[in-house]
Amino acid sequence: MGETLSLDGLFTSTRLGSLAPVDKDELDQIERAADKVLADVGLRFESDPETLDLWREHGMRVKVDRVHLDGAWLRSVVRTTAPPEFRLRARNPNHDTVVGASAPTVFAPVYGAPNLQLADQRRCMGSLEEYRKLVARAHQSPALSNTGHMICVINDISEAARPVRMALAHLECSDKPFMGCTASPDAARTVIDMTKLAVDRPERPAECELLHLINSSPPLTYKENTLRCLRTIARHRQGVMVTSYMMMGATSPVTIAGTLIQGYAEALAGLALTQLWSPGTPVIFGLFAFPFSMRSMLPAFGDPVSQLVQLYSVQLGRRLGVPVRGDGGVTSSNADDAQAGYEGGRTTSAATISGADFVLHAAGWLERGRCVSIGKFEREAQAMAKMHARAIEPVPPPIPLDHSIAAELHRRASL
Amino acid sequence: MGETLSLDGLFTSTRLGSLAPVDKDELDQIERAADKVLADVGLRFESDPETLDLWREHGMRVKVDRVHLDGAWLRSVVRTTAPPEFRLRARNPNHDTVVGASAPTVFAPVYGAPNLQLADQRRCMGSLEEYRKLVARAHQSPALSNTGHMICVINDISEAARPVRMALAHLECSDKPFMGCTASPDAARTVIDMTKLAVDRPERPAECELLHLINSSPPLTYKENTLRCLRTIARHRQGVMVTSYMMMGATSPVTIAGTLIQGYAEALAGLALTQLWSPGTPVIFGLFAFPFSMRSMLPAFGDPVSQLVQLYSVQLGRRLGVPVRGDGGVTSSNADDAQAGYEGGRTTSAATISGADFVLHAAGWLERGRCVSIGKFEREAQAMAKMHARAIEPVPPPIPLDHSIAAELHRRASL
Repeated sequence: MGETLSLDGLFTSTRLGSLAPVDKDELDQIERAADKVLADVGLRFESDPETLDLWREHGMRVKVDRVHLDGAWLRSVVRTTAPPEFRLRARNPNHDTVVGASAPTVFAPVYGAPNLQLADQRRCMGSLEEYRKLVARAHQSPALSNTGHMICVINDISEAARPVRMALAHLECSDKPFMGCTASPDAARTVIDMTKLAVDRPERPAECELLHLINSSPPLTYKENTLRCLRTIARHRQGVMVTSYMMMGATSPVTIAGTLIQGYAEALAGLALTQLWSPGTPVIFGLFAFPFSMRSMLPAFGDPVSQLVQLYSVQLGRRLGVPVRGDGGVTSSNADDAQAGYEGGRTTSAATISGADFVLHAAGWLERGRCVSIGKFEREAQAMAKMHARAIEPVPPPIPLDHSIAAELHRRASL
Repeated sequence: MGETLSLDGLFTSTRLGSLAPVDKDELDQIERAADKVLADVGLRFESDPETLDLWREHGMRVKVDRVHLDGAWLRSVVRTTAPPEFRLRARNPNHDTVVGASAPTVFAPVYGAPNLQLADQRRCMGSLEEYRKLVARAHQSPALSNTGHMICVINDISEAARPVRMALAHLECSDKPFMGCTASPDAARTVIDMTKLAVDRPERPAECELLHLINSSPPLTYKENTLRCLRTIARHRQGVMVTSYMMMGATSPVTIAGTLIQGYAEALAGLALTQLWSPGTPVIFGLFAFPFSMRSMLPAFGDPVSQLVQLYSVQLGRRLGVPVRGDGGVTSSNADDAQAGYEGGRTTSAATISGADFVLHAAGWLERGRCVSIGKFEREAQAMAKMHARAIEPVPPPIPLDHSIAAELHRRASL
């Protein structure tokens, strides 16, 4: 790896996207540069001896918690066993969704907002009551084929109880697929068990009940809880969306090229881990990056460079042969105004036109993700329905849970 | 042409765009269906015997003013002589812009707004004074490489004097390229002559001073003035952007497939006319369509279906081997609010990601095009600069016009 890599010529293209935007040579360069980063700098896998042992078993060089990795081998691991598409099973089989290039784009609402902006513009903290209404709202939207996870934070419930309360809300207020929990390996397992019980269908390859968001910790690091959750989820053969979520200029290089290279290296290693723990685990590749403003010390969500990262990330993911994440209406605006409209609108367009398979934050994101706006949720869900849903029909109310299953879920939730 | 054409399978794709969205088979089907429309229904060329004679000379069947056309032949006419890209020459050669797939996307401001919404939110009718300020504003914007035409209507000047007053504004308040006039063949000629005098460079193939907007009159018609302007402009070897501008459900079929087929037939015939009158005339292919609301009797600018039409139109134009038009921030909103933001933002994204070469209405469009908003103009110009300009540097003031040329231009303008 003594060669030096020139990035001259990367991103000198004069067009954003355009339907054949991404030069194969550019993608080759990004992969080669990422391989060099993986080999020479390596990634840190913090406080998780099992992961380090796994890498050692496969001949990787480990120094303390830093592992020097072989990018070409990681790619072959992913390409060999990760399914090119997979089925997310719902409580209602009519709402099963295939995630992958042959299927309609999946849209899920905003993830992780501590607060709400209600329809009457009042602002409040997220609560269990509001959470259940949000899930019901996502259920009713024809465009949202996944009700997501942590649409808002349930501030009125203890942190320990939130995972099961959220899972119950998704299972009781909807019968669509939703996303799993990564608060801890135990919480992930509990939610997986509850959901499997409610969905109640035999295990089949390339099918799962839950998709989980696993983020690396840029630059070039995976944290202990992340690694343990990833392993737990993979061993249950549940879906994992591995994302590098980068603040350009803070946790990744300020340039698009550098950010793509770092993010690709991180996400690739995470994807390979899922397959090494459990070959065939359904996965999604994701890169999400936005500039970090040195002046305001705030992330510039909705900045146009995110859209370029989006277009490249889909192409990079396609070359790994796995579905790819997109990001919907992200914006830095505090109100659902012109700025929220154009930032969110352009980001959504880049996600959908790029060909992304699973679009997170597709409805409701406001205030740099600190708030879910009901107004924005509704207009984005409507726009997605108009543009993407093949049949825009009212969604019937969720199938009721079987009484004994409901009782068992509540019993587990109260443990 | 006795075969019936099935459109089953068109637009059943489950993805908007995605980076390889448009199936070759779908494009083949659109062309075949358009050929059938051209042959069986034909196009009307109203009140212009010269155009009808030209079609007869080339063996087309003419009934009164309806001409039955051979689509395959029209395509070969366009492909044989229309330049794949061309240079728009500016008064300042540093501002020359190449229009075509190898060059940066060209952005021009809104075209045809009767009114203004000023920076302080006051609303007023367009005037010469405001017009000159708008041209200066477009000149100063690094992203707008073309200052366009009729950014607002000059209501305080007689209709007859507007073309020369606009041309003078573009020549005096900017030294970038701009667009020509199609009010009448005489006006077109006068503005061409004035601009050639000011630009003052020897004629060369695939180079011109002005780009003109020539719209068909859907359904399936060209009007007298349009045909005469088209001929005049082609004979001067100036640029022609032939567009079918359709209200879906009013002047074109309500379906996307039907609209693409009709629009392609119209634009193709117009493009072929330019080449028959003057082989080598620089041209741009354009389709622009939006739903017409039967309830409000208003066009629904900013509707997502426009974006699908945009994505397909670029692919259809590419197959003709000519540059393609895109449409920027169109919206139905009356204020620069969330609706203006997301409708304009998504439309712009579709235009740029589609690979369109020349994007009209890229800055300032408000109120269904009835108003140019200074606030929206500025934010859109900034967004385009951030996303597309390779070097965002202040644009120097325009080079002053030579005194004797200025005097001559003013003399002609007052004739």
